[in-house]
Amino acid sequence: MLTENITEILEGNAHYAASYTKKGLPLPPKRKLVVVTCMDARLLPAKALGLHEGDAHVIRNAGGSAKDALRSIIISQQLLGTEELVVIHHTDCGMLTFTNSQLHQILRERFHDVDVDDIDFLTFTDLEQSVRDDVEFLRSSKVINPHIRISGWIYEVETGKIRRVIEQ
Amino acid sequence: MLTENITEILEGNAHYAASYTKKGLPLPPKRKLVVVTCMDARLLPAKALGLHEGDAHVIRNAGGSAKDALRSIIISQQLLGTEELVVIHHTDCGMLTFTNSQLHQILRERFHDVDVDDIDFLTFTDLEQSVRDDVEFLRSSKVINPHIRISGWIYEVETGKIRRVIEQ
Repeated sequence: MLTENITEILEGNAHYAASYTKKGLPLPPKRKLVVVTCMDARLLPAKALGLHEGDAHVIRNAGGSAKDALRSIIISQQLLGTEELVVIHHTDCGMLTFTNSQLHQILRERFHDVDVDDIDFLTFTDLEQSVRDDVEFLRSSKVINPHIRISGWIYEVETGKIRRVIEQ
Repeated sequence: MLTENITEILEGNAHYAASYTKKGLPLPPKRKLVVVTCMDARLLPAKALGLHEGDAHVIRNAGGSAKDALRSIIISQQLLGTEELVVIHHTDCGMLTFTNSQLHQILRERFHDVDVDDIDFLTFTDLEQSVRDDVEFLRSSKVINPHIRISGWIYEVETGKIRRVIEQ
């Protein structure tokens, strides 16, 4: 018994695979680029940035946190040779709408026997500052290659446009 | 001075924004779905699964690790109401090609004064088992809603097709 979502995904994938011509692309990203951005449903990074199969690593999590993405960024740079990184947060982000302590309280109420107070949900209160903080976190990290070009951006869900916050 | 990548991204984004009609989409995903998958450059989740703006959260990291994604999954479920989750790993994944200790050694050689041995890079040696392990991790987690439907899949970079490993 398939769920409605699975049925739709299988239909979408059958459509995609029917005209698939990307066999044999190498594992390392062609553009030597890694994009770190939010999981938000309104954001389709490849479509919104003109990325094609094989172009760039895309790391996504709640908020587009660079700190949360560090494990993946290390692998991208050290093993797969990426040399440029863009951090893209976005307007109307869910991470602006709650605090760590509020979500800790929700989890304690909904679940039993959970110790969640040590989970940092990496919320933020100022969107532009969150981009600056993430770029600064990466630039000051001891495990990021110093020659990596890093820039910071905001995607506007109202317009589909990106605008730069921090130059590379 | 823009890098070649930034110039191409800005061109791609200008093209996207010129015909953007998605203003006003709500923050919670319409399909109540969250996709957890790999950052691999050859995988374009929205295109390969037929997802549109507003449909689903997409979390991506090296390997498509559910453990690494837990912070984001909690936010997706508890604050934004997703009720179904698909884990998608893929063939020819970079996570099959190295071990924790190998990458720790590389980092020690390339950087100085870094203490990296406590970073778990979440590598795996068996692709199908890695999907089963991630689904099991989520099903046994104390902070995942028990009614959430979770399924596990493999995306084939050779064909563009997904195939199911674990039913929801």
